[in-house]
Amino acid sequence: MARPKPLSGFPEFLPAQRLVEQRVIDVLRQTFELHGFANIETRAVETLESLNRKGEITKEVYTVRRLHAEGNQPDELGLHFDLTVPLARYVVEHAGHLQFPFRRYQIQKVWRGERPQEGRYREFRQADIDIVGNGALSAHHDVEAMLVMLEAFEALHEKIGIPQVRIHVNNRKLSEGFYRGLGIEETDQVLQRVDKYDKIGADAVKELLVDELSLSEEVAQKCVELAGISSTDSSFVSHVRALGVENEMLDEGLKELEDVVVAANRIAAGRVVADLKIARGLDYYTGTVYETELVGHEKMGSVCSGGRYDALASDGKTTYPGVGISMGVTRLLGPILSRGELIGSRSVPSAVLVAVTNEEERAEATDVATALRHRGIPCEVAPNAAKFGKQIRHADRRGIPFVWFGGLNGEVKDIRSGDQHPASASEWMPEESDIYPQVVSN
Amino acid sequence: MARPKPLSGFPEFLPAQRLVEQRVIDVLRQTFELHGFANIETRAVETLESLNRKGEITKEVYTVRRLHAEGNQPDELGLHFDLTVPLARYVVEHAGHLQFPFRRYQIQKVWRGERPQEGRYREFRQADIDIVGNGALSAHHDVEAMLVMLEAFEALHEKIGIPQVRIHVNNRKLSEGFYRGLGIEETDQVLQRVDKYDKIGADAVKELLVDELSLSEEVAQKCVELAGISSTDSSFVSHVRALGVENEMLDEGLKELEDVVVAANRIAAGRVVADLKIARGLDYYTGTVYETELVGHEKMGSVCSGGRYDALASDGKTTYPGVGISMGVTRLLGPILSRGELIGSRSVPSAVLVAVTNEEERAEATDVATALRHRGIPCEVAPNAAKFGKQIRHADRRGIPFVWFGGLNGEVKDIRSGDQHPASASEWMPEESDIYPQVVSN
Repeated sequence: MARPKPLSGFPEFLPAQRLVEQRVIDVLRQTFELHGFANIETRAVETLESLNRKGEITKEVYTVRRLHAEGNQPDELGLHFDLTVPLARYVVEHAGHLQFPFRRYQIQKVWRGERPQEGRYREFRQADIDIVGNGALSAHHDVEAMLVMLEAFEALHEKIGIPQVRIHVNNRKLSEGFYRGLGIEETDQVLQRVDKYDKIGADAVKELLVDELSLSEEVAQKCVELAGISSTDSSFVSHVRALGVENEMLDEGLKELEDVVVAANRIAAGRVVADLKIARGLDYYTGTVYETELVGHEKMGSVCSGGRYDALASDGKTTYPGVGISMGVTRLLGPILSRGELIGSRSVPSAVLVAVTNEEERAEATDVATALRHRGIPCEVAPNAAKFGKQIRHADRRGIPFVWFGGLNGEVKDIRSGDQHPASASEWMPEESDIYPQVVSN
Repeated sequence: MARPKPLSGFPEFLPAQRLVEQRVIDVLRQTFELHGFANIETRAVETLESLNRKGEITKEVYTVRRLHAEGNQPDELGLHFDLTVPLARYVVEHAGHLQFPFRRYQIQKVWRGERPQEGRYREFRQADIDIVGNGALSAHHDVEAMLVMLEAFEALHEKIGIPQVRIHVNNRKLSEGFYRGLGIEETDQVLQRVDKYDKIGADAVKELLVDELSLSEEVAQKCVELAGISSTDSSFVSHVRALGVENEMLDEGLKELEDVVVAANRIAAGRVVADLKIARGLDYYTGTVYETELVGHEKMGSVCSGGRYDALASDGKTTYPGVGISMGVTRLLGPILSRGELIGSRSVPSAVLVAVTNEEERAEATDVATALRHRGIPCEVAPNAAKFGKQIRHADRRGIPFVWFGGLNGEVKDIRSGDQHPASASEWMPEESDIYPQVVSN
């Protein structure tokens, strides 16, 4: 075949890049499991009927059909474009076998037929946590979901060197209650326009509210003033109160948002901001909403977002409320990996290349490798009995730090320092940081 | 939505089943990495041109297109149906950035539009290892690939309780050389019919060879006699020699197969069988071929197979030979999980449920959970301050072994024994086997 070209929007990583992604997934898994989230995977396809439930998003769906299906057979399946729609379907389908509140994490690829651009992919991995109730779900889970994700980001920063994050939180009840307190009925229409605040600015949003929704100057002004409020502590409450709007739903939203911000401050002061312009567009959130930016990379947009749905799913009899957050793993890592800012310290897991003196002694080299592996040291045997200099270069090109010469009682060379000394395959142990490849930053 | 029905051929697991799959993947990853295989993932889609290279298999492909693509736009992408075609494409596309021999493992889902039946899925996970050379690849890698997979199966048996395997090995050079030594030219045609040996028996294969390929009775007889040879040691060599056929390629195949069987016997005697009827159908193997059956579940067919390709890929200038084996993870686990033979010991990762005395003291319970998590103990806080009996049932229904009462210096109850005693969240540690859920067999 001629050298294939990459498919735009379908990123693929080299082994030393994939290593970073694996480590990220390991950290996420560990964090989520420490918090009692069980893992599930859902199938990659959903029925088009199920994918269509949210209306707006259908244009991004990839349909799937058998190549030799009859021509007039309609497409019935599509690739999932997020992990929330599949979760809703999974919960209803398997409800009889699940315990509620159902806490699950899910780390899978999703597909969207969008025009690819920097940081926007057609195939990408998401990592979601959700807590789903049966009939009811307490508001403290909104706090919990955010803190788990914040803890995951802190661990990614400490262990892997991913930039730190700032989580922006708002509450739909707060905004909706505020708008209702102002006498606005089409609160969704306002939210949709406030959602553009970051892109177009306060004045332009106000203009849209006046021109398109016929709000009065004064009411529109209050709406953009609300959107302009943010604080890393609970001081936002008094700023909202100062706008003089009274509404019961507003009170509820203020209380919920305050709880989230206060709890976050106990864990990681300053990492969470009450940001009253966060709207999360057309998604059907009904309470807390989250967005997350990487500090120093704010232009990338949100790398992790979510919120509370009062009706994640329903089977007619039972309603399943949920709160969840979805991290865009590929969205987060893609730019970091393509700029080479983080990379695996070597392209193979092997800490040791066992040299082969001649093909007749390959079995001896294999025995050395087996002895090292029994003690948890990844290694590989040289593919052929080339001159030792060539075998050392073989290790060097892969970043393998050690080359072993001779049998079970042989010699081991650290090819970085050139240091070589006698060693027994049943005793020698490299420094812990050399056993497995590390993520290094450039 | 109405309760959705499962999609036939797209298996999904409950959390306690998925836990078994996760553990299987962990063991595979650990084994492959100890042997120096680097992980990669390829995108789920390939161009139809790339998927079509093998001709025969196209009828199983799922095509993928944007829902809102123009009606007359031809389908250009399909979901990969194995991990070998994507590897071949990946190697040619990224050759300049890879080190050869390139050793990689890949654990991903694949899709085939086949009619679903017991043990046959439309979406399933495979775990592949391959070693790919640039221009040349020594025969000892055929031995290595098989031993790595055998070691993985032994680890799955010891650590998780997956039934043991028997790997059946043959060599295309052996069969082809033998047929050529008999004066047969259309050796592929013979192989295709010998491939049916297990299903239809020796006599029926012989009949096909005589009727359809016009082989003489005597030649056809030799072909089925060859297919009937098997041994767990190198005695198969003398049995083949006794058939009196002379051919250089046959000699080469005998030597390669003997090397594989002898090496396997050093690691795990009796687990590998030279089985001269193994043909691997129409796949383009050129040397060693492998098939694997679960001991006691032979009717399931092969759960792991592969072989040597002299030309896995080529870009016109360079040819990339490869040897690899692919384990059908879902094919292996699906029946075991659906029969309930293996299951997670609990449906959540949590070892501890921290009880909540009343909602005002939720923060205290959260502090206990945080302290336990810092010491690596997965836990969750009760969703509401119900009566303690109800909170204990909450833990029991999930299989959580411990319930914590009170603050950092509180009491912990083992709900299996009823034993309850004072404990400090900064010191108490459960038995290691209770920290994470275990795989248990029924």
